[in-house]
Amino acid sequence: MLRIKNRLHQNSRLVVIENLSKKLREKRKIMSTSTNSDRQIQELQKLIEDIDYGMLTTVNDDGSLHSCPMYSINEIDAEGILWFFTSAKSHRVSEIEHNQQVNVSFTSCEQQRYVSISGTAQLLKDRQKMEELWKPELQTWFSQGLNEPDLGLLKVSVKQADYWDSSSSYHPQTINFSSLSRV
Amino acid sequence: MLRIKNRLHQNSRLVVIENLSKKLREKRKIMSTSTNSDRQIQELQKLIEDIDYGMLTTVNDDGSLHSCPMYSINEIDAEGILWFFTSAKSHRVSEIEHNQQVNVSFTSCEQQRYVSISGTAQLLKDRQKMEELWKPELQTWFSQGLNEPDLGLLKVSVKQADYWDSSSSYHPQTINFSSLSRV
Repeated sequence: MLRIKNRLHQNSRLVVIENLSKKLREKRKIMSTSTNSDRQIQELQKLIEDIDYGMLTTVNDDGSLHSCPMYSINEIDAEGILWFFTSAKSHRVSEIEHNQQVNVSFTSCEQQRYVSISGTAQLLKDRQKMEELWKPELQTWFSQGLNEPDLGLLKVSVKQADYWDSSSSYHPQTINFSSLSRV
Repeated sequence: MLRIKNRLHQNSRLVVIENLSKKLREKRKIMSTSTNSDRQIQELQKLIEDIDYGMLTTVNDDGSLHSCPMYSINEIDAEGILWFFTSAKSHRVSEIEHNQQVNVSFTSCEQQRYVSISGTAQLLKDRQKMEELWKPELQTWFSQGLNEPDLGLLKVSVKQADYWDSSSSYHPQTINFSSLSRV
């Protein structure tokens, strides 16, 4: 009986140790993923922080691709989301409602740096988020500020970023965001 | 008899005059289309001539959009074709073989000019055309010059160009190329 009890005790101790070790492995994995994600986001942030405008490419209903300049509020958040202000009534928004796939390219002419950001986009009309992200420079396009009718946010969830640090490089360097968990 | 002859003569004169007038109308139409096309091409040429690199956006098999910098040889020909040198083995070429829709955006940081060119692309391996378009600057990416293995041309047939002359303008100006006849 004591032997059985001992064995049970040993087994339960083994289970506890295994569980602890599993938890530790998971914690380490989370920490490592989080550190990697932070690094990826910081890397991308650094690449685009001195560039005022990105060219946003969207897909039209007939499949043709169109791009337009977007003022960069220089916000890529901890979830790897790029934010832009837009009019909810603009043609690009209706394109995105039909096909979420977008590309945002950033060109630093001075430093001959070229960045391609692939992701999916959606329109948000979240007043609190707009207040948080608003920059006075945006008044150029939205004269009534946060009270502009049909003001909205374009939320671009970044999947991949490719960049060329010099125009002479043929192959890009790639930052992959597909492992990021998204809220 | 003479009356009938006279009437026939009058009728044939009418036909001749009508045909002449039709030919004149057609000639005027051709001249006007040609002049419009020339103007459109010159206008686009002027917008991009001082910009060394365009960002070419292509569609991947999974629908995602990717862009990469392309050296602009500054050639938009009389048929409204933009030409770029490329490696025929590059990923962008395989993307174009599956989906011909492309966008080329040009950014002039200094003049705050943004140009979006929508069109369709195809790969050409025409040695004569490559000899005609080759520029010494291309040696940076194709060290063996015209003898580079898998060297090819990307022929972009322009359908529409939108441009923003100043970053403060919200709506673009549009040059439509859809009326252009293509060889």
